[in-house]
Amino acid sequence: MYDSFRSMPLITSLQNVRVKEAAKLRDRRAREKQGRILIDGARELRRAIEAGIELVELFVCRELCSSDDAYAVLERAEHAPVELLDVTPSVFAKLAFGQRAEGVLGVARPPQGSLADLQLPENPLVAVLEGVEKPGNVGAVLRSADAAGVGAVIVADGGTDLYNPNTIRASLGTIFTVPVCDASSREVLAWLRARRIHIVTSRVDAAVRYTAVPLAGPAAIVIGAESHGLSEIWHGDDVTAVSLPMLGAADSLNVSTTAAVLFYEALRHRQGGPVTP
Amino acid sequence: MYDSFRSMPLITSLQNVRVKEAAKLRDRRAREKQGRILIDGARELRRAIEAGIELVELFVCRELCSSDDAYAVLERAEHAPVELLDVTPSVFAKLAFGQRAEGVLGVARPPQGSLADLQLPENPLVAVLEGVEKPGNVGAVLRSADAAGVGAVIVADGGTDLYNPNTIRASLGTIFTVPVCDASSREVLAWLRARRIHIVTSRVDAAVRYTAVPLAGPAAIVIGAESHGLSEIWHGDDVTAVSLPMLGAADSLNVSTTAAVLFYEALRHRQGGPVTP
Repeated sequence: MYDSFRSMPLITSLQNVRVKEAAKLRDRRAREKQGRILIDGARELRRAIEAGIELVELFVCRELCSSDDAYAVLERAEHAPVELLDVTPSVFAKLAFGQRAEGVLGVARPPQGSLADLQLPENPLVAVLEGVEKPGNVGAVLRSADAAGVGAVIVADGGTDLYNPNTIRASLGTIFTVPVCDASSREVLAWLRARRIHIVTSRVDAAVRYTAVPLAGPAAIVIGAESHGLSEIWHGDDVTAVSLPMLGAADSLNVSTTAAVLFYEALRHRQGGPVTP
Repeated sequence: MYDSFRSMPLITSLQNVRVKEAAKLRDRRAREKQGRILIDGARELRRAIEAGIELVELFVCRELCSSDDAYAVLERAEHAPVELLDVTPSVFAKLAFGQRAEGVLGVARPPQGSLADLQLPENPLVAVLEGVEKPGNVGAVLRSADAAGVGAVIVADGGTDLYNPNTIRASLGTIFTVPVCDASSREVLAWLRARRIHIVTSRVDAAVRYTAVPLAGPAAIVIGAESHGLSEIWHGDDVTAVSLPMLGAADSLNVSTTAAVLFYEALRHRQGGPVTP
């Protein structure tokens, strides 16, 4: 158990107004209305804090804090302008996700990154997810993007807000470490074209194999939802459609699987691996 | 709505003994006791039937059958020695998974494949999953294995039985189209060695990059659970440990992500792509 470093009255009531307002943040409309997001999980919070996300409130249940990540979050919160709110286990259970009880849960201001603000590294590899509705899939793609060194992930025409708590959770907090933003597909297409970034779309019926397209230069990998694929705007002379071989009974792969294979193929090219015709 | 081709009394009661016995099959012990498995979902059932799985009972709610897959299942069932049991929507809801209501749900005999029975293609690519507990992860790996042409998937020291309904579901039925079996890790290791199959393990701390190892010949890709990795028996002169580059904040990838990248890298080698040192 972590010793309290600030003395705060313990919140014991589920009816506490701060608790009720925070619990509402599971709902998209409340997130938009309050201009706040909910970050659950010790590891996710640690990554958010390390990435400079501005925490407003930190709900803490000391009895549940046992991981290195939770201790790191508490230690960093001590030196930050965040309000610590000690709560009982039953109050914490109301705030936290289903089975999660890691003792820390934060309310934060969402990063305000827009497409125009997106800072790209030199020779960028960008991922674009169009129309992906499941937060878990967006989060899983972010994890792979983080690992494979993708410079930015853009959610285009997304079916959910970027900082859905389930997206944050599925990303294990990498949503705070990878540059992300959302925008309309039209804006994204124009933005990529203005920067002369090669646009590579993933389409199940594309004749070109994904290994055959050079991905070592500035490139955007554009992936749609598994159910309905990419919209028609992703066509043009500067757009190359590629596909992954599908040798079995199934006719599609999960969006996060497709993304991981494409990201790592791009990384292979960027580390000197040859294109495979 | 699909016309009934056999006239059967409609089951209207949740207390019907056949319904109750089938519903029990969500539980592992009941699956073992009854020697039966539950296949939910029209696409999953279609793939099971097409793969020759022996259905014992088919629960049908005609009002809910609307997909091509559901019609295909009904048509095939007509010519098979399976007992059709018409049920009302409320009875079907008791049997089917959470939100799923595709009108068909089957009880089947599980395929009895053991390691000794496993038929490998020439120049096999085998996947071994050790200690993976989440059925969703096993199912997701099966989907990628199906797509990338993996010859067999072996679940070693699994934390769940192979035909957990959630595994079947997450695999989209590819668990019936890809050769699968479970065994102990020791048995699998001996089996691979007897066949002189090159053993390639995935370990986050391995010095060798996954693109640098030839995977065009007979090979087994061995992956452990994300939480605790592979056990110590996977070492030896004939074992090569590889890792995926991890360039970001996170220190591990989901097992199904790792599997997809490795399977597709092997396929790239098998289709003539060079090793990348």
